[in-house]
Amino acid sequence: MALLSPSRRLRRTPFSEGVEAAEIKAYTVYNHMLLPTVFESVEEDYRHLKENVQIWDVAVERQVELRGPDAGKLMQMLTPRDLRGMLPGMCYYLPMVDETGGMLNDPVGLMLADDRYWISVADSDLLYWVKGIAYGYRLDVLVDEPDVSPLAVQGPKADDLMARIFGDAVRDIRFFRFGMFNFQGRQIPVARSGYSKQGGFEVYVEGSDLGMPLWNALMEAGRDLNVRAGCPNGIERIEGGLLSYGNDMTRENTPHECGLGRFCSTQTAIGCVGRDALLRVAKDGPSRQIRPIEIKGELPPCDRVWPLTAGDERVGQVTSAAVSPDFGTGIAIGMVRMTHWTPGTTLTAHTQDGPREASIRDEFWI
Amino acid sequence: MALLSPSRRLRRTPFSEGVEAAEIKAYTVYNHMLLPTVFESVEEDYRHLKENVQIWDVAVERQVELRGPDAGKLMQMLTPRDLRGMLPGMCYYLPMVDETGGMLNDPVGLMLADDRYWISVADSDLLYWVKGIAYGYRLDVLVDEPDVSPLAVQGPKADDLMARIFGDAVRDIRFFRFGMFNFQGRQIPVARSGYSKQGGFEVYVEGSDLGMPLWNALMEAGRDLNVRAGCPNGIERIEGGLLSYGNDMTRENTPHECGLGRFCSTQTAIGCVGRDALLRVAKDGPSRQIRPIEIKGELPPCDRVWPLTAGDERVGQVTSAAVSPDFGTGIAIGMVRMTHWTPGTTLTAHTQDGPREASIRDEFWI
Repeated sequence: MALLSPSRRLRRTPFSEGVEAAEIKAYTVYNHMLLPTVFESVEEDYRHLKENVQIWDVAVERQVELRGPDAGKLMQMLTPRDLRGMLPGMCYYLPMVDETGGMLNDPVGLMLADDRYWISVADSDLLYWVKGIAYGYRLDVLVDEPDVSPLAVQGPKADDLMARIFGDAVRDIRFFRFGMFNFQGRQIPVARSGYSKQGGFEVYVEGSDLGMPLWNALMEAGRDLNVRAGCPNGIERIEGGLLSYGNDMTRENTPHECGLGRFCSTQTAIGCVGRDALLRVAKDGPSRQIRPIEIKGELPPCDRVWPLTAGDERVGQVTSAAVSPDFGTGIAIGMVRMTHWTPGTTLTAHTQDGPREASIRDEFWI
Repeated sequence: MALLSPSRRLRRTPFSEGVEAAEIKAYTVYNHMLLPTVFESVEEDYRHLKENVQIWDVAVERQVELRGPDAGKLMQMLTPRDLRGMLPGMCYYLPMVDETGGMLNDPVGLMLADDRYWISVADSDLLYWVKGIAYGYRLDVLVDEPDVSPLAVQGPKADDLMARIFGDAVRDIRFFRFGMFNFQGRQIPVARSGYSKQGGFEVYVEGSDLGMPLWNALMEAGRDLNVRAGCPNGIERIEGGLLSYGNDMTRENTPHECGLGRFCSTQTAIGCVGRDALLRVAKDGPSRQIRPIEIKGELPPCDRVWPLTAGDERVGQVTSAAVSPDFGTGIAIGMVRMTHWTPGTTLTAHTQDGPREASIRDEFWI
């Protein structure tokens, strides 16, 4: 791995002090901010995550706040998912597309009130798109990035740890719902969500000054639970089929290609940008789609697209890959043409270290 | 320095192979892409740049292409600089702001034809803003990121090297102008521009397949000129007062605060977004502004804002800093309140390693 040069442009987070004290080894950059990627090793972090509880600095999940009379109207313009059933306290996974149906981001939206939403974004400046649309349509809404930094608590012991800080009521939060909880006299949203399949919460820490006090309180309260600093884990998220914007999907792709058609109610999502294009896509169905892929042999880091071929024909590409300790094989996410996406189909994945045997699976590993 | 975890999301460039062959030591991430930062060492790269010629992979300067009947109208909406004098073959440095006058990016615009522009962007997804505005206003224009990757040739021997590849006509290109030049039978724009004060060119390589052939041709042709792979140099750019979006300015700042008032003809830039706010700012003048600052003593990496104080009062912040071998002192860029921006004013800069004596200068170092 190469070194990462520090600069103010790669923003620190309210939890950076805790991350450094935990002897962070590697980062990635996400929304112009530092995102931890390795503490002990990717494999040890993975094992620990699956058996214990971890605190993750995911401040990189920046929020786009919409506030004002037109906030709801703007939200519906931004996504082909029908938002009529969304109520305060709900989180919605929201594909967001441009006028051609190309993915711009795949955030989680939180409805705080009738006239107030947060959009918790993946790695692109969605703020610029939202501001442009709001300005172009002269909507009566404020669009900004508030001082909110999510902290995730993930792993099988997450409920026990969280209850010690926020009380037993956190155990009752349902999946993709949030409630307001007290920490040091301030009310902050706590959601049952997170970028792992091990269960847990995301605390939307509003106010950078609360960052380290909350980090330290969780670390202290979780000693006997073997709590540790952690981060989204490259192996675990591929096992679980959690997609990554910029890796597994880009503006080149429609939600349907990404397997997100079930989040698109384009017919009823009146006013959404990209509606014309997506109605066409929904009617015809995608001609390529994301699939779980097993790959045999040693794998280099998946730092570029790996073409997938059948004979001389290019039929897709791998976009994320790792070797899974638990499943004892190479696991991957890729986009595959419909002619070759049937489970069991054998293809060749062309890594920078040479070709590997790949086969389409019917489902992810967990 | 921490390590940088590889992933497809941190895009490689058409020149990555050449960068790796030159034994790159460190990167930063810029526009979701790898930007080299260190080859030998920052100090040795600096010395070499000032005396020889370097090839820079600046593919991270992604282009936003506007094409269609409304391209010119959209360009003028995006910037407070008056574009009426812009003609094909010209490059313009263009502050771009939101409706409140906050900086969104500080790109260089290239006019390719009456109905076609490229915007060569700094580190933010300006594409999203431009697409949002174009969509909101229903403009008749295509907005996209084309397959264009700038390669910079910088240093005192840049003219000699470039003439060997593109012919002596490159010597006649004036500053911030570009011409179309032939390479392997294709016409590509070559501009006299670049992110250093040492002189040189930026080649807008259209077509990723041309990347390594051009890289190799330049390396081969420049052997006796002591050509080397290089990159924007953190010391040299601060000496020269070249601002960095995300470091020295953000959406918090107006162009006038950034000393870019001379690029704002807000009165005549009819239709530009942010006009109302900027007319107010231009009338009142900014109450804080970017200044060159000298800092005494050893300096840690400027990976966060360093508050500037006068006594107990916070009066500004340092946003970029390095130690200059040529000037034998700490050099910095910062934003300072008008009460304390007079040259010669002595302040305290609070680094993560402790306080340092800082003084306001009247101009940058070169």
